[in-house]
Amino acid sequence: MVGPSYTDMRNFVVVGNKAVTSPDFSLNGLPSSAGRLDILCRCVNSAFFLSHDIRRDVTLWLILLGGPDPQVIIRFVGDRLKHLNPDERNIATLIKKALDRKSEDGREIESTPGIYVKRGELKDALEGAGEILYLHEDGVNISDMEFSDPTFVLGDHLGISEEYEGILERLGAKKVSIGPRSLHADHCIIITHNRLDINEFDRSCN
Amino acid sequence: MVGPSYTDMRNFVVVGNKAVTSPDFSLNGLPSSAGRLDILCRCVNSAFFLSHDIRRDVTLWLILLGGPDPQVIIRFVGDRLKHLNPDERNIATLIKKALDRKSEDGREIESTPGIYVKRGELKDALEGAGEILYLHEDGVNISDMEFSDPTFVLGDHLGISEEYEGILERLGAKKVSIGPRSLHADHCIIITHNRLDINEFDRSCN
Repeated sequence: MVGPSYTDMRNFVVVGNKAVTSPDFSLNGLPSSAGRLDILCRCVNSAFFLSHDIRRDVTLWLILLGGPDPQVIIRFVGDRLKHLNPDERNIATLIKKALDRKSEDGREIESTPGIYVKRGELKDALEGAGEILYLHEDGVNISDMEFSDPTFVLGDHLGISEEYEGILERLGAKKVSIGPRSLHADHCIIITHNRLDINEFDRSCN
Repeated sequence: MVGPSYTDMRNFVVVGNKAVTSPDFSLNGLPSSAGRLDILCRCVNSAFFLSHDIRRDVTLWLILLGGPDPQVIIRFVGDRLKHLNPDERNIATLIKKALDRKSEDGREIESTPGIYVKRGELKDALEGAGEILYLHEDGVNISDMEFSDPTFVLGDHLGISEEYEGILERLGAKKVSIGPRSLHADHCIIITHNRLDINEFDRSCN
């Protein structure tokens, strides 16, 4: 078992307000019967895929709040991932396996290589996180910031609830914006990666 | 029938080297039996979706080269699109309908609102295009450029063939780069939109 590591990593936490916590959903009905699990699948794609490669320096937490079982965290660890393809159906199959194999006693289980599942919620995912950034249209322009082991928090189509905004505020999260338009969570992850890629490249050239 | 319009539009052309041209594929096998149609579906998502809205100022051409039928162009027109959801399966269903309804005599057919299909290839899609930009890692940094009615050309997992690179060169296409990493086509569209959004916003504030 590999515990969470935030050092030299890019971390993303995505809240699925209606995403199912039981494996009894149809792969043909991700937006409907699975509570917009399609959005979370696309966030997995955005977080990890390069052209013909995987981003090894990324950890992604999905927070599934949609019931019927208690809240679930699924953690994806880039440098241990295997069998991950970029299409929604493949990613949903791996999430289904994770939900099927989760322990009832709260222990974290590695359901397939690099994918870990346990009962839990936002504050469990953020335990040990360094700098917490809440991606939000009203935030500070991401281009004006320097990051150290950032953890970016995003919501699905319903955003982040007031309760969760309260948790983020108490943890000292800063709001950051990636542009003037309101975008899907998976699109925000792509743009965030791009800004960090450019920053890293510029630093390596100086 | 609404003809192509490039004025004040953002235009994207995506080449699907193996994407099927017949509707006889399984919605459960987009990466396999449909010739990586999953990539093209994600490009449709990236080109059009805002949070709870559609980008009306976008036209997207998919060029399907994978047989068994002759080459096909599917054109998506933002300000006429209806029934478009962001998940791959929904988008693939609309592409399947387009392929099912295409005319054998080369005429362009509106298969569902805002989606047009005809036999054709890259040079047909680029007829009448203004400034053609070929998204490529070795290109000029996109941040250093100003665009007027741009048409961005991208390839799927196999990129752009030498034959098609020759066509682009003869049409005077410029290579532009969006960052230091090699990315999936759908991710490139997201980043391109973000740069254009920021440019437009900056201009509106000055």
